[in-house]
Amino acid sequence: MDVAEFRKRGKEMVDYIADYLENIEKRQVYPDVEPGYLRALIPDRAPDEPETFEDVVKDIERVIMPGVTHWHSPYFYAYFPSANSFPALLADMLSGGIGCIGFSWAASPACTELETVVLDWLGKMLKLPEEFLAGTEGKGGGVIQGTASEASLVALLAARARIVKRVKADHPEWTEVDIMNKLVAYASNQAHSSVERAGLIGGIKMKKLPTDSKFSVRGEALRNAIEEDKAAGLIPFFLCATLGTTPSCAFDCITELGPICNIEGIWMHIDAAYAGSAFICPEFRPLLYGIEFADSFNFNPHKWMLVNFDCSAMWVKKRADVIGAFKMDPLYLKHDHQESGLVTDYRHWQIPLGRRFRSLKLWFVLRMYGLRGLQQHIRKQVALAKEFESFLLADERFEICAEVVLGLVCFRLKGSNELNETLLKNINSARRIHLVPCQLGGVFVLRLAVCARTTESRHIHEAWTHISRLASEVLAENRP
Amino acid sequence: MDVAEFRKRGKEMVDYIADYLENIEKRQVYPDVEPGYLRALIPDRAPDEPETFEDVVKDIERVIMPGVTHWHSPYFYAYFPSANSFPALLADMLSGGIGCIGFSWAASPACTELETVVLDWLGKMLKLPEEFLAGTEGKGGGVIQGTASEASLVALLAARARIVKRVKADHPEWTEVDIMNKLVAYASNQAHSSVERAGLIGGIKMKKLPTDSKFSVRGEALRNAIEEDKAAGLIPFFLCATLGTTPSCAFDCITELGPICNIEGIWMHIDAAYAGSAFICPEFRPLLYGIEFADSFNFNPHKWMLVNFDCSAMWVKKRADVIGAFKMDPLYLKHDHQESGLVTDYRHWQIPLGRRFRSLKLWFVLRMYGLRGLQQHIRKQVALAKEFESFLLADERFEICAEVVLGLVCFRLKGSNELNETLLKNINSARRIHLVPCQLGGVFVLRLAVCARTTESRHIHEAWTHISRLASEVLAENRP
Repeated sequence: MDVAEFRKRGKEMVDYIADYLENIEKRQVYPDVEPGYLRALIPDRAPDEPETFEDVVKDIERVIMPGVTHWHSPYFYAYFPSANSFPALLADMLSGGIGCIGFSWAASPACTELETVVLDWLGKMLKLPEEFLAGTEGKGGGVIQGTASEASLVALLAARARIVKRVKADHPEWTEVDIMNKLVAYASNQAHSSVERAGLIGGIKMKKLPTDSKFSVRGEALRNAIEEDKAAGLIPFFLCATLGTTPSCAFDCITELGPICNIEGIWMHIDAAYAGSAFICPEFRPLLYGIEFADSFNFNPHKWMLVNFDCSAMWVKKRADVIGAFKMDPLYLKHDHQESGLVTDYRHWQIPLGRRFRSLKLWFVLRMYGLRGLQQHIRKQVALAKEFESFLLADERFEICAEVVLGLVCFRLKGSNELNETLLKNINSARRIHLVPCQLGGVFVLRLAVCARTTESRHIHEAWTHISRLASEVLAENRP
Repeated sequence: MDVAEFRKRGKEMVDYIADYLENIEKRQVYPDVEPGYLRALIPDRAPDEPETFEDVVKDIERVIMPGVTHWHSPYFYAYFPSANSFPALLADMLSGGIGCIGFSWAASPACTELETVVLDWLGKMLKLPEEFLAGTEGKGGGVIQGTASEASLVALLAARARIVKRVKADHPEWTEVDIMNKLVAYASNQAHSSVERAGLIGGIKMKKLPTDSKFSVRGEALRNAIEEDKAAGLIPFFLCATLGTTPSCAFDCITELGPICNIEGIWMHIDAAYAGSAFICPEFRPLLYGIEFADSFNFNPHKWMLVNFDCSAMWVKKRADVIGAFKMDPLYLKHDHQESGLVTDYRHWQIPLGRRFRSLKLWFVLRMYGLRGLQQHIRKQVALAKEFESFLLADERFEICAEVVLGLVCFRLKGSNELNETLLKNINSARRIHLVPCQLGGVFVLRLAVCARTTESRHIHEAWTHISRLASEVLAENRP
């Protein structure tokens, strides 16, 4: 394909995407395919000779679309939102066109510098403490990770390196592994599975802390764990606190946890993957009180801030802590400016070496929506969740299972887990809307997350009417 | 921005990208900016109110382009190639538009299934042993990782989990950390820094093996290390062999290393990040002899197979080994089909949870180039490297520092490291072409990697004439 054909086909693709997103409601939100459906639809090997763009494009509707779960359909209420906006799509096209790999400053200065500056912008929108910003003389700063999982892992590894160094100073006779054997990290029993996985990867004991009736980790739970572990000769060194848990959007009490961590020399990382975007609204900013005690903070603009995946924003107070955990400097990656103290080489901040020019997406979105536009998006989606909550509150067959703080509603039919499992199964089998469940204190719960950017009040009404009707059917069938 | 404006702006962006790539030769390949240049060019905070697309777009040339290192310029010869092709750009646009997050089969069946099938295609193109393919009943299979660094880490963690389980069966009294303390992994002293980093992350001792005169790890080096380590009570469990090292494109001798690993129960991972693409050509396929001994294999189509970053293809013989190292199953990620044995949930195969629909890029590229087109691309770039080598061979001032097997030429002026450092500095300061150095056996060496898809013989001529002239100047200045 030459550049002239790319001009033609690129424009056709823009129209295809525009058509897809404009008419997404007409597609069934969750596919009917069975496992293995795709293999039978395409040859079993790549062609020897080139095919045309037409050959490929006609297979999008024949092969791909029948197996797509449409995350941007207003009938999609599963998991958490995955952002999608036109400014982000345009920026991502540009990022692909430039196609630089920004592992060091020299590998493309603009790629590194825009990221640092735009993360300062974003930090200011969230009113993060000054120490998290890079500025021109700060010791902190932000980085775009691929996912919150990677951010948790990077924080844990940085904390591990810091504590190993600290303990080794007091006990030079202990090996690194001796020390690792004594380390213990903490997270909520509601924390995302990736946090537990970070411990597994890093070879670290990760203990789950109990939560209160609001699924929140309180200071006392942490204090008890620390006492018990210290008495057993262990070294508590890391806490991953969650603001907006995946099951129920619960908030760990960081105003209580933070001071304990600071006194004990424990690294506090905050994972606000979903909820973080809301903190740009003054009315939700109090949810972030206590951030001043944290060593690192992360949220995903690719969830709720209209920046397409992947864009997970992470800040640290002391970037030297992160860099120190990973730094490797082979000659082929060295460059003139790196020891000047003025440049950031993001390869030292992350698990992979290579990285796309992802800050363009953030830059386009922040500018073309403005703070106001993004606040409107958050507020609208919270209002839709509240609207759905109001339907539930008015129907005595249902109960709300966790406080509706942002765009997630956890609910169930009063009654057994089996009843609710049947309801969910029927909802998903009907294919009108798509939900996933969670477990809260041993109870099977349905989660409705307001996801698509184009979800409107009428969709919420429709979802409610549908759920209510299926609930009546389930209840009728299960009448004793 | 509404969908109508997206149609318009998207088409403008396609033209901008087409113009950029069509005229990239006219841009200076390496930027003149100093660290910190960008911050002064844009406001210090995000706007409150939305800006227009015009506002943003005019800043691409004003703010971004002056700081871009142009990886797709035919004057770019640094690092290794980063792929960029029109079919991949089109597929990436589509991937962004669909915007699904394919962490499980249910999250978008097409995203998972296309990946499995297309990696079978690619495996067949490389003539990987049958065991690496998923097929309908295979125990192996492929996955797209973000980078080769992640692939090495995943392989190391899978190997760690396998050996811990194995050792624990014999020594139930040892803790996991006791066992980790005894583990030792190996890689070439020429291996990529990310391999050493994988050891660091996984809390594993990683030993660098010496290489022979061709910078290749031989069986004897591994055998010596194993004997020594076993005598010291350690447990060798993992070897990362490299095919096509970053400094000099050297090849570890896997036909010697493989059988040793198999006998000793050591997991052999092969990192062929750059060179792997060449194995689709029958004449280069012998470089992969010995693959049958490996447990896992990885290469980056995003380097040399015209698939834009990120797309790092990894295969394992036993997918259960990888899945077992990571599996976490919270209720909100469970789905009906997952226990059927028929589906793949790629979240268990990788470090992050979320993942883009990256297989579309591979699918578009394999189909629109065909095997033949991709072979042509590889052969053309190898021929260009050979052409550059021939200029060096004809000029007695220069020496070739490593066999030119694929698209990388390692060379230097006969003489001191300082002389060559000056030459490189002058080359990069002149900004006509861009190179990076490496170190081979303590010697400072210049690397010329044929990178851009559009590099032609005339560019190689030009690069040579330029280097030759600068060499004359340096030699004149340094005449005793």
